[in-house]
Amino acid sequence: MAEPPCVAVIFSSTRTTDDTEGYGAMADRMEALATRQDGFLGLQSVRDTGTGEGITVSYWSDEAAARAWRGVAEHVAAQELGRTRWYARYEIVVATVTRRYGSDAPAG
Amino acid sequence: MAEPPCVAVIFSSTRTTDDTEGYGAMADRMEALATRQDGFLGLQSVRDTGTGEGITVSYWSDEAAARAWRGVAEHVAAQELGRTRWYARYEIVVATVTRRYGSDAPAG
Repeated sequence: MAEPPCVAVIFSSTRTTDDTEGYGAMADRMEALATRQDGFLGLQSVRDTGTGEGITVSYWSDEAAARAWRGVAEHVAAQELGRTRWYARYEIVVATVTRRYGSDAPAG
Repeated sequence: MAEPPCVAVIFSSTRTTDDTEGYGAMADRMEALATRQDGFLGLQSVRDTGTGEGITVSYWSDEAAARAWRGVAEHVAAQELGRTRWYARYEIVVATVTRRYGSDAPAG
């Protein structure tokens, strides 16, 4: 799902204990919405509910596709709730994929 | 900790239920050992113990530093145990960081 060259967006965050405005449902909805964007290649998301730490990596065909997702109206609204309510801290790193290997990567 | 340009190594995995050979202690030791390598810039790691899914992102000054860590003898031994016992699947994506932003990034 992430053959080079493509773009990885690494979103790391720490949750607050604020579940107002439907955090869980919104997280699920944003994941479903992301998969329908042009240039979407895949997504992996893990959160440790004990510590509140989470990492989501989404893969995109190019920088333009990753930027376009950042600007989707529903996503912008979710980002605002994230900043003000749901996340104590967050960081986004954008990177260009150069290599991929492992047990579930194609050979070569 | 991950100012561009630098290299991100995204390690995603699913654990088996095999805890032989001291998985937890080895994971902690590898994290501590990584921090002492030349070119190490930072590491974020999250595992959902319910699903067994985990993502670890480590940041390195350049590709050579990331490759050198892959070849450290103790790490090579841990990788072999990972492949044969601890991980049902795993994937490693290497990427060059182009942008970073968020609540804990410097302004700019």
